[in-house]
Amino acid sequence: MAVDPEWLKSHIRDIPGFPSPGIIFKDITPLLADVEAFRATVDALADEYAGQQVDRVIGIEARGFILGAPVAYRLGAAFIPVRKPGKLPHDVEGLEYELEYGTDSLEVHRDALGAGHKVVIIDDVLATGGTAAAAASLVEKLGGEVVGLGFLMELAFLGGRSRLEGRDLRALLVYD
Amino acid sequence: MAVDPEWLKSHIRDIPGFPSPGIIFKDITPLLADVEAFRATVDALADEYAGQQVDRVIGIEARGFILGAPVAYRLGAAFIPVRKPGKLPHDVEGLEYELEYGTDSLEVHRDALGAGHKVVIIDDVLATGGTAAAAASLVEKLGGEVVGLGFLMELAFLGGRSRLEGRDLRALLVYD
Repeated sequence: MAVDPEWLKSHIRDIPGFPSPGIIFKDITPLLADVEAFRATVDALADEYAGQQVDRVIGIEARGFILGAPVAYRLGAAFIPVRKPGKLPHDVEGLEYELEYGTDSLEVHRDALGAGHKVVIIDDVLATGGTAAAAASLVEKLGGEVVGLGFLMELAFLGGRSRLEGRDLRALLVYD
Repeated sequence: MAVDPEWLKSHIRDIPGFPSPGIIFKDITPLLADVEAFRATVDALADEYAGQQVDRVIGIEARGFILGAPVAYRLGAAFIPVRKPGKLPHDVEGLEYELEYGTDSLEVHRDALGAGHKVVIIDDVLATGGTAAAAASLVEKLGGEVVGLGFLMELAFLGGRSRLEGRDLRALLVYD
C-alpha cells in the first residue's frame, strides 16, 4: 500500500539548532503521535518486504526501535536490536565506523544472527549512511543476508546512498 | 489471549554481573529473537487493554520502545516516547525521581499528551517502580489519564508495586 510522502512530511517538524547549531533536526514525534500516520508508516515499510520471507528485522537504537519493532511484528519476523556499545549484555559483535569528526560504534548479540537469516534493517533516517552501512556489515559478519534497508526518510543532500551502493534501499519520503 | 508465563520465561536469560556486580540482568533479546514469543508478548500486552479505547501508548527509553511501539500499533493507538534528558528536541515536561543512589529524570514532549487522552505505559521490566511512577506522573502533569501500566516481567522481590499503589499494573510474568 503506497503512502503519500507529502502527507507523511506534514507530520514531521523541523527543529533548527538541534542537537547542535546549524543542524535542522527532523522530529518524527508528531508522526508517531498521529494514529493514522504511525500506522501508515509501519504498514508501508513492512509492505516493501512483503513476500520476501524476512526472518529478522533489525532496529538501530533508539528511534529505529520505534519503527523496527512494529515492522517486525507486522511482517511476522523476529526483532533484533543493534545498540550503542555496552548496552547489550551477552557476547557481542561490534563494528566501529567513521563520523565526520571521530568514530562511533554499534553492537549486536552474536547469537542473534547467523547463516540463512534474511534480515531487514530499519531506521528512521538515512543521513550520511554511516550507521546503516555499519549495521549491514554487522549482519554480514555474522553470516546473515541483508534483504534491504528501510527508512522513513532520506536526507538526500547528505549523500548516504553513495555509502550503500549495491544495497536495496527504500525510503518512504525524501528531502532533497 | 493468555500466554504461558513459564514459556515466556524460557526465552529470557540471566546475565550475572550486568550492568554491575551483584546484579542478575534479565536479558529479553532471546524472546525478541523468537518470532512466536515476540508476537505472543505483544499480543498479550495489547490484549490487557482491549476495549478500553486507549489513545496513546507510552514506551520508556530504550527497551520500552521495543515493546511499546508494536503494542501501540496493535491497539490502533499513537506512540509517545518518554526519553532521558536532552534527547527530545521540542518543548518538554520533565520529572526527576530518586534512585537507590542519586537521581534520574525522564522527559516527554508537552504537546504529545493532554486532557482526554487515555494512556497506557509499557516497559519491559517493573523493578523498583521509580521509572514507571515517574512516567505515570508525567502523563498526569500534562492532563492525561493513566489507564494502566503493562510490563513483560515484574521483579517482585524489588517491591515496585508499593510505589505504584492504586494503579492498574499488569505483568505477563513474575520473578519472586
